[in-house]
Amino acid sequence: MQRIVARIVCRIAGMGRVGLAGGNPSGVVVLMSWILACAVTPAHSGGTEDDAAHREKLAAWVTSNRSSILDELIAFVSIPNVAANVEDMKTNAAHLKGMLEKRGLETRILETPTRPYLFARLGASGAPSSAQPVRVLFYAHFDGQPVDAPSWTVTAPFTPKLKGDASDREARLYARSTADDKGSIVALLAAIDALRAVGIAPTVEAKFIFDSEEEIGSPSLPELAQQHKELLAADLLIFADGPVHQSGRPTMSFGNRGIVTVTLRMYGPSRPLHSGHYGNWVPNPAEKLSRLITTMKDADGRVLVEGFYDDVVPLSATEREALRAIPAVEAELQDELFIARPEGAGASLQEAINLPSLNVRGIASGSVGDEARTIIPSSATAEIDMRLVKNVTPEAQVERLKAHVRKQGFHVVDDEPDAATRRVHAGVVRITSGPGTPATRTSMDTPISRAVIVAMRRAVEGEPVLMPTLGGTVPLHHLEAALNVPVYGAPIVNYDNNQHAPDENLRLGNLWDGIVIYASLLRLPAPDDLAR
Amino acid sequence: MQRIVARIVCRIAGMGRVGLAGGNPSGVVVLMSWILACAVTPAHSGGTEDDAAHREKLAAWVTSNRSSILDELIAFVSIPNVAANVEDMKTNAAHLKGMLEKRGLETRILETPTRPYLFARLGASGAPSSAQPVRVLFYAHFDGQPVDAPSWTVTAPFTPKLKGDASDREARLYARSTADDKGSIVALLAAIDALRAVGIAPTVEAKFIFDSEEEIGSPSLPELAQQHKELLAADLLIFADGPVHQSGRPTMSFGNRGIVTVTLRMYGPSRPLHSGHYGNWVPNPAEKLSRLITTMKDADGRVLVEGFYDDVVPLSATEREALRAIPAVEAELQDELFIARPEGAGASLQEAINLPSLNVRGIASGSVGDEARTIIPSSATAEIDMRLVKNVTPEAQVERLKAHVRKQGFHVVDDEPDAATRRVHAGVVRITSGPGTPATRTSMDTPISRAVIVAMRRAVEGEPVLMPTLGGTVPLHHLEAALNVPVYGAPIVNYDNNQHAPDENLRLGNLWDGIVIYASLLRLPAPDDLAR
Repeated sequence: MQRIVARIVCRIAGMGRVGLAGGNPSGVVVLMSWILACAVTPAHSGGTEDDAAHREKLAAWVTSNRSSILDELIAFVSIPNVAANVEDMKTNAAHLKGMLEKRGLETRILETPTRPYLFARLGASGAPSSAQPVRVLFYAHFDGQPVDAPSWTVTAPFTPKLKGDASDREARLYARSTADDKGSIVALLAAIDALRAVGIAPTVEAKFIFDSEEEIGSPSLPELAQQHKELLAADLLIFADGPVHQSGRPTMSFGNRGIVTVTLRMYGPSRPLHSGHYGNWVPNPAEKLSRLITTMKDADGRVLVEGFYDDVVPLSATEREALRAIPAVEAELQDELFIARPEGAGASLQEAINLPSLNVRGIASGSVGDEARTIIPSSATAEIDMRLVKNVTPEAQVERLKAHVRKQGFHVVDDEPDAATRRVHAGVVRITSGPGTPATRTSMDTPISRAVIVAMRRAVEGEPVLMPTLGGTVPLHHLEAALNVPVYGAPIVNYDNNQHAPDENLRLGNLWDGIVIYASLLRLPAPDDLAR
Repeated sequence: MQRIVARIVCRIAGMGRVGLAGGNPSGVVVLMSWILACAVTPAHSGGTEDDAAHREKLAAWVTSNRSSILDELIAFVSIPNVAANVEDMKTNAAHLKGMLEKRGLETRILETPTRPYLFARLGASGAPSSAQPVRVLFYAHFDGQPVDAPSWTVTAPFTPKLKGDASDREARLYARSTADDKGSIVALLAAIDALRAVGIAPTVEAKFIFDSEEEIGSPSLPELAQQHKELLAADLLIFADGPVHQSGRPTMSFGNRGIVTVTLRMYGPSRPLHSGHYGNWVPNPAEKLSRLITTMKDADGRVLVEGFYDDVVPLSATEREALRAIPAVEAELQDELFIARPEGAGASLQEAINLPSLNVRGIASGSVGDEARTIIPSSATAEIDMRLVKNVTPEAQVERLKAHVRKQGFHVVDDEPDAATRRVHAGVVRITSGPGTPATRTSMDTPISRAVIVAMRRAVEGEPVLMPTLGGTVPLHHLEAALNVPVYGAPIVNYDNNQHAPDENLRLGNLWDGIVIYASLLRLPAPDDLAR
């Protein structure tokens, strides 16, 4: 009943996408102040006066401590962190352990056969003694994407460079992992500092897990999650990764797309051949691969692989409403990104992200530029990523893609084909795939979801963006499954951060706001009917 | 009349593809002995008894001098010779100058703004004093293709390695340029040594031009040919480059395909984008490029660019006959090269080579393998080579390709497109092309052609392969035009030499035979009615 009232009031105030009701004392307080906020403040307000006061205190602390926060991030991103380099990741882990221990957090290194993960815990000193505090597990990763150093134009990947003045919210720090994802780790730790400095205690028991191999798919995470089930046990998981919505508005996501990568290798002649002596007679594998790729999508970008969209679970009413409320950014993006005509036959970017995708992330055959030689190459390789949504599994999509390739008349093999196979079949394609990461999508209609939304609203001025699905992938399904825990995303970094690409950067305004958001999530209201 | 008789006699002997008649005293001798050879020796014989004796003497000299010949080649290919490295090419030129001067040849360095060419001359000491000797200009190049050192499996590109014993004709020397084209230069010089050693004098005035930039299209050759017109003046030009026919038979070609290279760059988003956050909405340039490439050829490899075959000059009756006489090697090649189904809808390799071709020699977008990242790339590049045949110009083919790209709905630009262009046009393609090299094809029915064929027959046991067109390209059209001279090709190296690719190699048997062939070309019979 209370919930219905809250929803009605909020709708009147023009804000209502989700309702909230308190099922325990602190919940009631939250509810009442929230109803008040809905009823008396205009849409896009940041909550009650108390919330605003807290937010201002926290923001003021951030402003006073900008240079030390920045120094901590600069020191952290100066350490090379390409996951393939295991020794580098150990150096990073040791450094991060120091950062955690400096705050007095209970810290543990979680060993794996290769790169260590880190765990930390912070008690719920601000929770009412009558109730068991909500346990929030925060996830972030401290490894980064591989770097193609010569392509970086602002600075070398691990030589951080600030463009602009630290006092300018538009200034940006350039280096690998500033945005993805060391910036978020520094923000989480600064949030703890900020709460302490302004004298506001966390209401939740906060746990932190820091991943050292996210960019290669977190291969150790499944076993690690099983092994440390008790240690990691939580009521919700918040991943501190990914960019905010392109509008720049503070963002909360309720899931993320999954991914599975596939490598296609098309075989040509047994060795590279002179194009003069053989061109017109020996088939070219780059041309065959092009032909195959062309069959995979139509001109609108719709994937033509049979069954590709079959398992998609339609969005709920709440999710559809959330999508509609997200600011439209398509026109600005088209202008900024030089997109004359997007894929999707008129769908919004948010609609597109809630569907599975197929993307040729790399293709190579022979050489281009100065190294180009006049040959018929002996093979051609395409790297494909298929993004997944809820209920669409990596295995199913890979099998569908293989069936599609076969249907085009190619002979599909799993391993390097032998000479006999290549002599007999006119088009031999080797298809290999990664293990894949399924998508997650937490309902927006649960008590915990509603509590998370409240905390988010308290932290920001104006309306946050609530996204049913974040486009990117974090390998949290193992944690989600092992811990049986709902997953939320609290990205803080600017969307135009060049993550996974040269010139990765973090806009300072996003870092400062992110600290306040994380502080608010450490002050999560008790959910109304939290089932343990 | 004499010519007709010769042709008839040869046809009876089963050898007759071309006739020869002598128009001067030495020509008559040649003719008579040749008629005799045709009439009394079985098909695939090597000529008269005198020819056989000469050949044996020369071959015996080669056998006795294998190790010093090989040493000279090893020293030469040890010098890095990627044309882009101008200083390296100067070192090569100085070394080659020493090789020429050692033989007492009149030697000149022909300076260019970058890499020096070399010229040398050898008098016709064996020509009858009554007649002006035939002037033969031999062409070879001493630069090599770029090297991708990590791909070489037998040895490093400039660390020659002999696999097998020098006494074994099947042994091979591995290094860049062993086959393309330093091996031919060493063979030419050894041919001079061999003639001198066995006491047979050259009947021609031999000139040599050695190119230092063939693999980058010989940019200085047009001006150089004009500048040194008198010095280079000749009655015929023989290029000592390219591989023999795949049957392994000694080969003479009457032309070569031309080439023009084209670079297509397809533009995508303004920067590489995270495939999770944008996949399904931002169009992918690698996929668009694949779509474009797929429109260029049908499944049989026939080029679909409008007008692509319009300017092809049909082969003459003699050329068609020559084609038919070439040993069929398709089945063996399919087996060796793993070609389950060749392009060309059933055409022979030789037929295919007499048509223009389009080949994707390289393609790149994003990264593959360990460097692959989950992005939508911001551009995709294809390197294309179009081989040309007689009368099909580089300019016309490039214009046709551009028109084809436009017809597929793409916006074609010559330079890096600006933001406004990329914002407006859904598919922007930058097309740039090299200057191109036209094809050459000398008639097989001229007196000089007939003389060349005789010299070739004298040099080999069995029938040589006579090819109207060699598949590869040598930039001789400038020499051909400036000197108004017919062009012939006398390739000597094994066809499976991996030229333009890692593990380039030269089969020793080919080197030894090549020396005897070049010696015979230095003893060219006087053409029957050579017009000066």
